Amino acid sequence: MLPEEGRKRVIIEGVKPEIDAGRFPIKRIIGEETVVEADILADGHDALSCALLYRKQGDDRWTEVPMEPLGNDRWRASFGVHEMGIYYYTVQGWVDHFKSWSRDLAKRLQAGQDLSVDLLIGAEMVEAAGERAAQLDKEWLATFAKTLRAGGAEGARHALSPELARLMSINGERRFITRYDKELKIVVDRERARFGAWYELFPRSCSAVPGRHGTFKDVEERLHYVASMGFDVLYLPPIHPIGTSFRKGRNNTTVVGPDDPGSPWAIGSAQGGHKAIHPELGSLDDFRHLVETAGGYGIELALDIAFQCAPDHPYVSEHPEWFRKRPDGTIQYAENPPKKYQDIYPFDFESEGWRELWEELKSVVQFWVDQGVRIFRIDNPHTKPFPFWEWLISEIKRDCPEAIFLAEAFTRPKALYGLAKRGFTQSYNYFPWRNTKWELTQYLTELTQTEVSEFTGPNLWPNTPDILPEYLQFGGRPAFMARFILAATLGPTYGIYGPAFELCENRPLAPGREEYLDAEKYEIKSWDLDSPDSIWELIAKVNLIRHENPAFQANNNLRFHDVDNDQVIAYSKGSVDRTNQVLVAVNLDPHYKQSGFITLPLEELGIDPNLPYQAHDLLTDARYLWHGTRNYVELNPLTVPAHIFVIRRKVRTEHDFDYYL
Amino acid sequence: MLPEEGRKRVIIEGVKPEIDAGRFPIKRIIGEETVVEADILADGHDALSCALLYRKQGDDRWTEVPMEPLGNDRWRASFGVHEMGIYYYTVQGWVDHFKSWSRDLAKRLQAGQDLSVDLLIGAEMVEAAGERAAQLDKEWLATFAKTLRAGGAEGARHALSPELARLMSINGERRFITRYDKELKIVVDRERARFGAWYELFPRSCSAVPGRHGTFKDVEERLHYVASMGFDVLYLPPIHPIGTSFRKGRNNTTVVGPDDPGSPWAIGSAQGGHKAIHPELGSLDDFRHLVETAGGYGIELALDIAFQCAPDHPYVSEHPEWFRKRPDGTIQYAENPPKKYQDIYPFDFESEGWRELWEELKSVVQFWVDQGVRIFRIDNPHTKPFPFWEWLISEIKRDCPEAIFLAEAFTRPKALYGLAKRGFTQSYNYFPWRNTKWELTQYLTELTQTEVSEFTGPNLWPNTPDILPEYLQFGGRPAFMARFILAATLGPTYGIYGPAFELCENRPLAPGREEYLDAEKYEIKSWDLDSPDSIWELIAKVNLIRHENPAFQANNNLRFHDVDNDQVIAYSKGSVDRTNQVLVAVNLDPHYKQSGFITLPLEELGIDPNLPYQAHDLLTDARYLWHGTRNYVELNPLTVPAHIFVIRRKVRTEHDFDYYL
Repeated sequence: MLPEEGRKRVIIEGVKPEIDAGRFPIKRIIGEETVVEADILADGHDALSCALLYRKQGDDRWTEVPMEPLGNDRWRASFGVHEMGIYYYTVQGWVDHFKSWSRDLAKRLQAGQDLSVDLLIGAEMVEAAGERAAQLDKEWLATFAKTLRAGGAEGARHALSPELARLMSINGERRFITRYDKELKIVVDRERARFGAWYELFPRSCSAVPGRHGTFKDVEERLHYVASMGFDVLYLPPIHPIGTSFRKGRNNTTVVGPDDPGSPWAIGSAQGGHKAIHPELGSLDDFRHLVETAGGYGIELALDIAFQCAPDHPYVSEHPEWFRKRPDGTIQYAENPPKKYQDIYPFDFESEGWRELWEELKSVVQFWVDQGVRIFRIDNPHTKPFPFWEWLISEIKRDCPEAIFLAEAFTRPKALYGLAKRGFTQSYNYFPWRNTKWELTQYLTELTQTEVSEFTGPNLWPNTPDILPEYLQFGGRPAFMARFILAATLGPTYGIYGPAFELCENRPLAPGREEYLDAEKYEIKSWDLDSPDSIWELIAKVNLIRHENPAFQANNNLRFHDVDNDQVIAYSKGSVDRTNQVLVAVNLDPHYKQSGFITLPLEELGIDPNLPYQAHDLLTDARYLWHGTRNYVELNPLTVPAHIFVIRRKVRTEHDFDYYL
Repeated sequence: MLPEEGRKRVIIEGVKPEIDAGRFPIKRIIGEETVVEADILADGHDALSCALLYRKQGDDRWTEVPMEPLGNDRWRASFGVHEMGIYYYTVQGWVDHFKSWSRDLAKRLQAGQDLSVDLLIGAEMVEAAGERAAQLDKEWLATFAKTLRAGGAEGARHALSPELARLMSINGERRFITRYDKELKIVVDRERARFGAWYELFPRSCSAVPGRHGTFKDVEERLHYVASMGFDVLYLPPIHPIGTSFRKGRNNTTVVGPDDPGSPWAIGSAQGGHKAIHPELGSLDDFRHLVETAGGYGIELALDIAFQCAPDHPYVSEHPEWFRKRPDGTIQYAENPPKKYQDIYPFDFESEGWRELWEELKSVVQFWVDQGVRIFRIDNPHTKPFPFWEWLISEIKRDCPEAIFLAEAFTRPKALYGLAKRGFTQSYNYFPWRNTKWELTQYLTELTQTEVSEFTGPNLWPNTPDILPEYLQFGGRPAFMARFILAATLGPTYGIYGPAFELCENRPLAPGREEYLDAEKYEIKSWDLDSPDSIWELIAKVNLIRHENPAFQANNNLRFHDVDNDQVIAYSKGSVDRTNQVLVAVNLDPHYKQSGFITLPLEELGIDPNLPYQAHDLLTDARYLWHGTRNYVELNPLTVPAHIFVIRRKVRTEHDFDYYL
C-alpha cells in the first residue's frame, strides 16, 4: 500500500537524549540547557534544513531552533527551560532546494559555467518565497528576484549574498517536512532537585535532657547547629505514631522493654497512621511551626514516606482487603525467609481494592504537601509496584511541580534505574560501597557521564541509620573526613545521617556487620555535639565552598584525572559558563600520608600550557603555583585528607607592579 | 488518572534484538536461531516467570518458549525460524507466586521453621491450578494438594518435588501478565541471502570473436568457466537498450564514435526501456533460456536495476511529469556541480505523479521477477527516497519472499544502514578501501559483531567496474590473491567483477584515480581467459573450501586474533554446531614475505591447551602440528599469500597404532 505522502524524503533517527524510545522523560533543572542531536538525512545530494522544536505543556506553539550540521549526517541544537513542569521537544527536517541551489551555484560560478538558466531557477524560488513573505521581506525578495532575472555577474553576486540566504531561510519553501514521530518529554524541577546538602536526624534524640523524648520544639533548637554546618535540607525519619505489637527492642531484638520507643518505620497505632503525628513529638501545629522556622534558616524539611503498617495501624482494621491473609486467618507480615518481620504488614498491591489503596496512599503524600512539605524521601520504593510510583509522582507533581522525591532504592541496578525513570527525582545508590579509586571512578562515571544522568540525580550518602560501611568502621576520623569530602564534592547532592556521622560514630553491631551498634532506629540517643572529635567545622567549610563555587552544583561535569598513586583520587568540575573550575584530590588511605603527580588535561580546563597557573586550596587557603600537566600533591589523613582547589588561569607577574614600566 | 490494571507489577525493557525501538525488522535465514534477551523485573522479592513468544505472520497463535534468568534481571530464550517470510516475536513476564512459595519454603525448611500454614498456602495454589488443568494433570494436582494439606515432612517433600514444579509451571496461576508493548518483526530469507559467491560480467564482452558484440548465447558458453570457479550468482549489468543522445565514448569521454556501445547504465532508447532487452544481446526468450541454463550449473542470475533514464527513454516523452523541467523548457539532467551527466535524466521523486512513478518502477522489478529473476543489484539506491525502497521491497517480497536485494550503497554510513534497515538484503560497503589490518579489523568487527549484523548482510567486493582500488593497482598479482581471499573468507557473501579481477587487470584511468583505464562500461572488451597470470585456480579452490566448510557460511561468527606483525591478519570462524573451525591468516604485504606468531584463544575454540592440535591448510594441503596459544606462520606473497586452516582438535597419538597395546 502506498504511503499517504511518499515525497517526505528526509529520515530522522538516533535522536538523543531519548530514554527507552521516548517511553520516559529526561529531567532538567530550571535554567538548564538540553542539547539535542539527531541523524537527519535524505537521499541524493540535496541540502537539508533541520530544526529543533520545543514547547511547554499546555502551550500549543512550538519554538523553533535551527540545527547545525556536525558532519556524518548528525545535527545539533539546544534550548533552555525556564519554568517548572513538563516540556516537550522534537526535531524536523526538510529538503531545502534553495540551499542546494546556492551551494551548486557557487560551484558553477567557480568553474566559470554559464549561469543564465540557473539564475532563472533561483529567481523562480525567490519569487515564490515573496508570495509567502510579509510586506518588508516581500519587497526585498522582489528586488532580489529582479536582479537574478537580469542575470550576469550582478545577478550571481546577489544570488549568493548572505542577505538573500537569510530571507530565504525565513520565507523559502518548506515542502514535505519530516517531523520525528515522537514528542519527547522533559520534567523540569527547581534547583534543589539537583543541588543540596541533606542532614538526617532523629527528632526524638534532640532533647537537651538525656533520656527525655525529643520534640519538634527541640528540633527547632537544633536548627541553628544544622544551619551553621550549611545544610539545605533537614530530613526526618517517620514522625507518625509507632506500633506496639511486636515492637522491636534495642539493637533490633524481639525483646522489648516498657521504655523502648520502637522503630519509627513501624508506622501506625491506635493514635493514628500516616497522616498522624507521634504524640510525644508534638502536634501538627508544632510540625508546621518547625517547617516555617527551618525555612527561616534556609533549611527545607524532608519527610520520610514509608508505605507499610504496624499491626496496630488503623488501616488494618479499616481496610483488611489491603493486606494478604493467611489460611489461618492472620495477616501476612513482612518476610525475607527465613527472617520474619512481624512488626510490619506490607500492603498487598495485588488486592482487589488496589484502586482505593493507591488513592489513599496518594492522599498521604498530598496531606504532607498541604502542611508545607515539598521533599519526600521514599522508604524502600522497590517493594511497591513500578506503575504505582509512576502514577503517584506524576499526580503529585501535576499540582505541585516543586515536589522532590528521593528513592531509597538500595536494590538491583535495573530496579533502581527503573524507579528513577518513572519519576523519582533522586536516588540513593551504591556510593556507600564504592571506596577504592577504581570503584569510585567507574561508578561516578556511570552516574554522571552516561544516559543515567539524563533521568536520575544521585544523592550520595556515606552513612544512613541502616548503613555503617566497613571503611568508616576501621578508618577512624580520617575516614569520615575523606568520605564526607568525596560525597560533598563528587555530586551536587549528598547527605549524612547525623550527629552519628560528624561525631565519627563507628561501632558496628557485630564484626562483619555494616549496621550500627545501639542503633538510633531502636532507641533515643543523646549526642555530645561538642565532642572534640566532631568534624562539623570541616562540614561547614565544605558546604560553604559548595555554595560559593557553581562548579559543585552540577552533576554531568565530573572528570577524573590520572594520579600515579592508587590511594589518591583526583577529579575536576567546571561551571557551565567556564568561570569556575575546581579540582579535588582526596587521600583514600585513612592511615598513611600519600602523595603523587596529578595529570591534568590543560586544554580542556582552558589553561595555557606555557603559562603557570594557580591552585588555590579552599580548605587551607594555601596557594600553589603550578605549571604544565603534571603537578605534585601530598595529603596527610591526620590533618586534612584532601585538597579542594579552585584553579585560576591568571597569576600575577612582573607586569602587575607599578615599577615594571 | 488510574491505569486500567494497576496490578501488572512486572516491567520489561532493554529487549534485544530490537532495531530503532522496533521500527525496523531484524533479518534471519531459514534455520537460523534468534536469541532474545530482556530485562524483566518486578518490585519486591517475588519470583518471576518469563516467556518468549513468536509466530509467523498470518498465524494467530504464539509459540511460547520459557526464558532463563541470566542474573541481574536479564532473561534469555531463543527460537528458530523455518519458513521464508515475516515472523514476529515479543516477551512477557508475570509474578509467579507458586515459584516464590517453593523458593521460600525451601529456606524455611532449611531453617527448621514450622511449615504448617505455609503448606496450606501451597495447597490452595495447587487446588486452584487443579481447577484449570486437564484431566490427567487435574488428578495429579489433587493428590499433591491432599499431601500438602496433610502437612509434615511428607507434605514438605512433595511440595518441593520437581514433578509438582512442572505441573504448576503448566497449570499455575498467571495473573497480571505484562506483555512487552511491541511485536518485533523478522524478515526470513533463503540461504542465498547470506551465503554466496557473486561474479559480475558484461555480456557484450563474452563473444569468442574479438570485437563482436556478445549475446546471451555467448554468456551461456561462458557459464562453464564461471561454474568451474565455483560461483553461485552471475550478476549482469543492465541489459536494456542503451540511449544514444549524449552517449559516452571510451573512457567516459563526451566524444563518441559510431561504434561506441555506450554505458549500459544509460538506459532506454527508441527500442524500449527498463522492461526491454538491448537487441544485440538477444531476445527475451534468449534471456529466459540463459536463466534456465545457468540454473543447471547451480548458478542464479542477478540483474541490475538502475532507476534512471537516457534522454531517449520512452518514459521521457510518455511521462514528462516524472522529470524536473528547467525554465528553458529542457529536462534537468543529472549533475554533481560543476560536473554534468547529460546522458542521464534522474526521476523527480517530488513529482506530482509520484504515485504512478512508484507503481511503474515496481512493475519493472515485477517484470523481471516474472522472467525468473530473484536477485537484484540496485544501482545507486541512495539517490532515490528511503520510503520508496521500503515500500518497493516489501511489496515485491510479499508475493516473492525469495527475492534478494543488494544495495550499491557507496555512500555515507547512515544512508547505507538506513537503506539496509528499510529492506535491502545486502549492501556493498567500504571493503574496497579497507586494506590495512587495523582498518579491516575495525570495519569487519562493525559489520559482523554489532547491531548492524542484525539488519544487513555485507557483500564484499574487492573491485567493481567503477572501482579499481589503489591497493590492486600497485600490488600486482599477490595483491589480487590477498584481496580475493580476504573477501571470500571474511564474509559469507562476496563478489568480483571479472574477468578483470581474475586476470589481475590493474591499469588506472590516471595516476591517483581509482577507475579502470579503458573501462568496460564504455567499450566491448575481449579477455584472454587463458592468461597464465589468471588466479582462477585459487578462486575455484577457495569457493570449494567455502562450500565444504560451514564456518564460512555465517556472518556473525568472525573473530580476529592477535598477530605480532601488522602485515599479517588472522581471524577464525566457527560453525554454529562447533564441528567446523577455520582459521585464516593473510599476508597483507604484496611485496615481501612476512611472518609472525598468532595468538589463539584456545578455550573459545574448544581446544585443550595441554594437547597438540592440527592446523590443516586447505590451500596447500600442508598439515601443521600446533601446541598452545602462540604459533608461527610465514607467508610468501609470490606463492600463496594466505593460509586457510581447518583447526582439528584431535590428532593421532601412539594410541592409534595397533602395536601400542
